[in-house]
Amino acid sequence: MQTKNHTLPTIALLTDFGLTDSYVGVMKGVILSICPIARLIDVTHAITPQNVRQGAYVLLNTLGYMPPQTVYVGVVDPGVGSARQSVAIKTNRAVFVGPDNGLFSYALKHCEIQEMVILQNPQYLLATISSTFHGRDIFSPVAAHIACGVPLDQLGPSLTKLEALPPPRLEITPQAIYGEVLDIDHFGNVATSIGRLTWGNNDLLALVPFFDPQPEPTLMIEPERCTVQINHRMIDIVGLTFASVPRGELIALINSADQLEIAINHGNAAHELGVQIGDPVILSIN
Amino acid sequence: MQTKNHTLPTIALLTDFGLTDSYVGVMKGVILSICPIARLIDVTHAITPQNVRQGAYVLLNTLGYMPPQTVYVGVVDPGVGSARQSVAIKTNRAVFVGPDNGLFSYALKHCEIQEMVILQNPQYLLATISSTFHGRDIFSPVAAHIACGVPLDQLGPSLTKLEALPPPRLEITPQAIYGEVLDIDHFGNVATSIGRLTWGNNDLLALVPFFDPQPEPTLMIEPERCTVQINHRMIDIVGLTFASVPRGELIALINSADQLEIAINHGNAAHELGVQIGDPVILSIN
Amino acid sequence: MQTKNHTLPTIALLTDFGLTDSYVGVMKGVILSICPIARLIDVTHAITPQNVRQGAYVLLNTLGYMPPQTVYVGVVDPGVGSARQSVAIKTNRAVFVGPDNGLFSYALKHCEIQEMVILQNPQYLLATISSTFHGRDIFSPVAAHIACGVPLDQLGPSLTKLEALPPPRLEITPQAIYGEVLDIDHFGNVATSIGRLTWGNNDLLALVPFFDPQPEPTLMIEPERCTVQINHRMIDIVGLTFASVPRGELIALINSADQLEIAINHGNAAHELGVQIGDPVILSIN
Repeated sequence: MQTKNHTLPTIALLTDFGLTDSYVGVMKGVILSICPIARLIDVTHAITPQNVRQGAYVLLNTLGYMPPQTVYVGVVDPGVGSARQSVAIKTNRAVFVGPDNGLFSYALKHCEIQEMVILQNPQYLLATISSTFHGRDIFSPVAAHIACGVPLDQLGPSLTKLEALPPPRLEITPQAIYGEVLDIDHFGNVATSIGRLTWGNNDLLALVPFFDPQPEPTLMIEPERCTVQINHRMIDIVGLTFASVPRGELIALINSADQLEIAINHGNAAHELGVQIGDPVILSIN
Repeated sequence: MQTKNHTLPTIALLTDFGLTDSYVGVMKGVILSICPIARLIDVTHAITPQNVRQGAYVLLNTLGYMPPQTVYVGVVDPGVGSARQSVAIKTNRAVFVGPDNGLFSYALKHCEIQEMVILQNPQYLLATISSTFHGRDIFSPVAAHIACGVPLDQLGPSLTKLEALPPPRLEITPQAIYGEVLDIDHFGNVATSIGRLTWGNNDLLALVPFFDPQPEPTLMIEPERCTVQINHRMIDIVGLTFASVPRGELIALINSADQLEIAINHGNAAHELGVQIGDPVILSIN
Repeated sequence: MQTKNHTLPTIALLTDFGLTDSYVGVMKGVILSICPIARLIDVTHAITPQNVRQGAYVLLNTLGYMPPQTVYVGVVDPGVGSARQSVAIKTNRAVFVGPDNGLFSYALKHCEIQEMVILQNPQYLLATISSTFHGRDIFSPVAAHIACGVPLDQLGPSLTKLEALPPPRLEITPQAIYGEVLDIDHFGNVATSIGRLTWGNNDLLALVPFFDPQPEPTLMIEPERCTVQINHRMIDIVGLTFASVPRGELIALINSADQLEIAINHGNAAHELGVQIGDPVILSIN
């Protein structure tokens, strides 16, 4: 793709702060005070409060769409003020700044880590560090300094091991694939851990497990032999688009993150099914 | 007005995606990957899911306030992945990029169309096109390329006819004007299709129908002879400001888009009246 | 802190408009039409409709974190279209543009006022001024012109006295400090008017009243002798972080604005306590 002005750095913010308070605005004020040329992108601020795992999944799905060397500030941080470390992680695709609690661990499975540091150098933090708002006092100023050119080794001592979350559930047997609900979007569409799925030759669905770097699919599936089971409901159709079924009907499709998703054409599947994040989902192969 | 740096392009986003997911953030990542100098404006992401008509009305009311040649990305798109076309439309006032489903048809009544194309050239789209997220894969990259200078004729073949929505209801008789509720805002203020109204000479209200390009008003109204009827309630006062009536009282006023609006001073008229988008409203002239 | 490009002006927006309508997007369109290089920060648009006092408190807490000479546009404006003045106020820390209704009065207690003007010069306003949307027609264009260099004395006649809100409740006796709830955040954390509190020597809490410019604290408190009373509940622990108590338990802590705050570790204190803005809170010293 044709591009211009690649010297403008980008900072992408992902938090569970919501948009009703001034927390996000204050973080942007701190960032632009230090690096006024930074471009800011709100990934989302609506992660379920303190749900690190949902944050990790949402962040992963944005990784391929941000400008190269985007600096992510991730703050889903139930342990703020406790012993957990504040870290910055430089990779071949992006830089991650936030708490060391696994929030970046899903994205990092798809990156080559180049450098990891603990954020300790007070020169790059705000003068006063509160116990409850490291997003403002530590992560935002550090991200702004990185975006404007400060090398990671200036920020503090290097780190050799990060916290990691367990991967989303994905169990594959010849008869069925067992997964779980990972996210529910604004439309009520239900994203699951079953994937990544892509359409291969002969109308077969090719499944490559989430974090698997191998190019060869683990399994080839014939969609017409599949049934999806979620919360005591059976769904037969694995289609391509919402409009593949009549209005108001359930459909199992491959979503824009290549995951199996349950949706209703012109409707809200999560409400209709009474589904929540973490619920089990089974793709049976008949 | 005095201006500076008019070479910075603006991209305005209007969707029904909400702000709880990462959809909008991902679109911005795609845009800034291609055109980092673009200025981004969120018009709104809270169009009622799949309500193309509400989107068309809201977009129209922003048209006069955006920088010249703003590139609008509009995504209210229940037919995503079906046969509907993806289009870009260049006019004398703005460029519109999105689905060909009528979303831009209200705004286009106030523009001179200069060029219309179907978005088919894969050089200006993402490498993989999903079936469910054309906002990310087609509309955002195309808008970014247009903002950074790619001419429309590079994007695909030209188009001669667009889909259009029926206009909002506005029936004018000597005794009454019949309209409908078009939008309900955050404060519960109820915007109707009765307008555009402006104060003329001798304290008369001049009505020019919505899409009428003629400068001469269709009707001159004496406000003190008017009664507004909505959901079995009668409202006498057609005032200028919310504060024209005591706290908690209903008022019919001319809103900032020159439409007849029902409001409550310091209150929520939509809740109080039990009104929904599409409900009928009558301005009786006694 | 190391900074670059300090010539890029910043405009910070604080309103009660919400994000569901196009009001905020239209204001940004007006601003970028006049001053395309301005950096925009959304402080919040979720002030409770027409709650000027909550707006004043939230704005105050952002003041120390914005770039120098940020132009604040504040629109919590129940009197729009009535006799209240539209004003711009230049201080040593920031510029404030909005209605003269006390919205800036808490922040101004911490600034040195340099210049105050009434916004009357039509050259710097939109061509048509509506009765209900001065955020678009007056405040946004004026803020953009100020950000791009127009001096205040061009905007209208000077002003000598501003409206001011009464300060938040803070009564100090040897046995107890009486305050009130000022804000409830997205997590349900309850911010009170008791503060500003900082940890001093010997593990004592030092209290400096809200608007008191004196460096000497009014009171030194021993936290282990304190009990917080709110809505018929007694809370003993005054800790530092959410994680200082087990999951699900109430804690009284010093928040990131140095105010006494009631929270629940991994929970929603406002729901649990049934607390609303304005409710009384007492810090008893035993």
